[in-house]
Amino acid sequence: MVSFTSITVRYAETDQMGIAHHSNYAIWYEQARTEFIRALGSSYGQIEKDGVWLPLLSLHCEFKSPALYEDQLTIKTAIGLLTPSRIQFDYEVKREGVLLGKGFTAHAFTTPALRPMNLKKHHPALYALLQGAFEEEKP
Amino acid sequence: MVSFTSITVRYAETDQMGIAHHSNYAIWYEQARTEFIRALGSSYGQIEKDGVWLPLLSLHCEFKSPALYEDQLTIKTAIGLLTPSRIQFDYEVKREGVLLGKGFTAHAFTTPALRPMNLKKHHPALYALLQGAFEEEKP
Amino acid sequence: MVSFTSITVRYAETDQMGIAHHSNYAIWYEQARTEFIRALGSSYGQIEKDGVWLPLLSLHCEFKSPALYEDQLTIKTAIGLLTPSRIQFDYEVKREGVLLGKGFTAHAFTTPALRPMNLKKHHPALYALLQGAFEEEKP
Amino acid sequence: MVSFTSITVRYAETDQMGIAHHSNYAIWYEQARTEFIRALGSSYGQIEKDGVWLPLLSLHCEFKSPALYEDQLTIKTAIGLLTPSRIQFDYEVKREGVLLGKGFTAHAFTTPALRPMNLKKHHPALYALLQGAFEEEKP
Repeated sequence: MVSFTSITVRYAETDQMGIAHHSNYAIWYEQARTEFIRALGSSYGQIEKDGVWLPLLSLHCEFKSPALYEDQLTIKTAIGLLTPSRIQFDYEVKREGVLLGKGFTAHAFTTPALRPMNLKKHHPALYALLQGAFEEEKP
Repeated sequence: MVSFTSITVRYAETDQMGIAHHSNYAIWYEQARTEFIRALGSSYGQIEKDGVWLPLLSLHCEFKSPALYEDQLTIKTAIGLLTPSRIQFDYEVKREGVLLGKGFTAHAFTTPALRPMNLKKHHPALYALLQGAFEEEKP
Repeated sequence: MVSFTSITVRYAETDQMGIAHHSNYAIWYEQARTEFIRALGSSYGQIEKDGVWLPLLSLHCEFKSPALYEDQLTIKTAIGLLTPSRIQFDYEVKREGVLLGKGFTAHAFTTPALRPMNLKKHHPALYALLQGAFEEEKP
Repeated sequence: MVSFTSITVRYAETDQMGIAHHSNYAIWYEQARTEFIRALGSSYGQIEKDGVWLPLLSLHCEFKSPALYEDQLTIKTAIGLLTPSRIQFDYEVKREGVLLGKGFTAHAFTTPALRPMNLKKHHPALYALLQGAFEEEKP
């Protein structure tokens, strides 16, 4: 499964180079995986309320071409990796079909006290939902 | 009592006009009142742990002249108003003695559930500390 | 004329109180006036390219009730004041019809060198467009 | 050569997990390389005025342990790679000696029109300055 998220670059997201500041990609990726999870029929907020947190283990971004103020961007999101203890989301950012950048975020499954959690064991239904989305995008 | 906070404008805080984006003033004010409270011998973090939250009721900013990347700013902070249920902080932002902007934030005293609190009644020591700082700056 | 802008609260916009940080209102207001101007048939980006900048003179926000992660907000935007040298936009932020906050931003019309400009004289067509939108919302 | 930058976590940088939001690392890294370049006797602002821009090619962050509000962080910065067309900065973020995260940013040298530039050829003095700092940290 993949999802597609629309982002319009905000003025506050630009910097004095006249382009969208790179730190915003982390925020756009976050919005993209929020919508991915909503497309699965769940919600990031609900998952947190159920006691599963997804703090980041790592973030990687590659920038091919800058995004500009008022640009309409599309972010394609997919699960790149899933194990009982972690998940990776992959992202591609395009403007009118042209790739501007891509990246990934890796997350641990944790309790609200930020202790590692075996999601498959403690939240099998959520794990199955993610597993289904992960399997679906394999060729 | 007044406190003085030093801020260096970050690149990410600039926008495509080549100036610091106005939304950052709210963040700089926040850092300034954090340091004001630390100068009082307490800390914002400790106050929250003690069960007193200070959500904003209002924010006001006036912009005289833009701040630029790498500018060294000084923010002067004082308590502008104090009652058992609310507090107002006043701010002046200067660069080399020249006023760039000024403003204020008004905060309610609340519980962590965001219910209004009478600070004087429920946390008399903290109220006395703030009252002392408020009195001190009166002429 | 009024415009309505939809905002979904981003995770990055929350703070450790569990609510949307107040500094985001300035950014949401900005997106709202961007869409207001687009609804007029122009664009903020085009206006800048035409040599008219709109730096802020002041910002005011009142907060009635907090916005939370994933909340769907609607911002109603209108021109509150228009003179040849400045413009004020008024905003109301609602969630499911309930007012969470309101505010305004006042802007100067300037050149790209941030020098004051008489918009009516130097860009009469744009001024007339704004004037039309301003008149329209008067009772 | 290495530089050390002090950061205090701002309230606005926290999220509803109660930790500093990961997007801030990109901004802290930026402040750290700004100070690295200042420690070299130059400045990022001056370099831009001289017609050399450093847009990002990539950003990588690894998160070991969360940073919290009011935490005093130290960022160690060094040049990880230097060629005539690009530079990489490496960062380590610590709190009281404990590693919270690390990462790098890779930058192209470009003109203000964002066209690739051979820095060694067009700005030999700046290149030599960076080369000296790069050589110095080799064992």
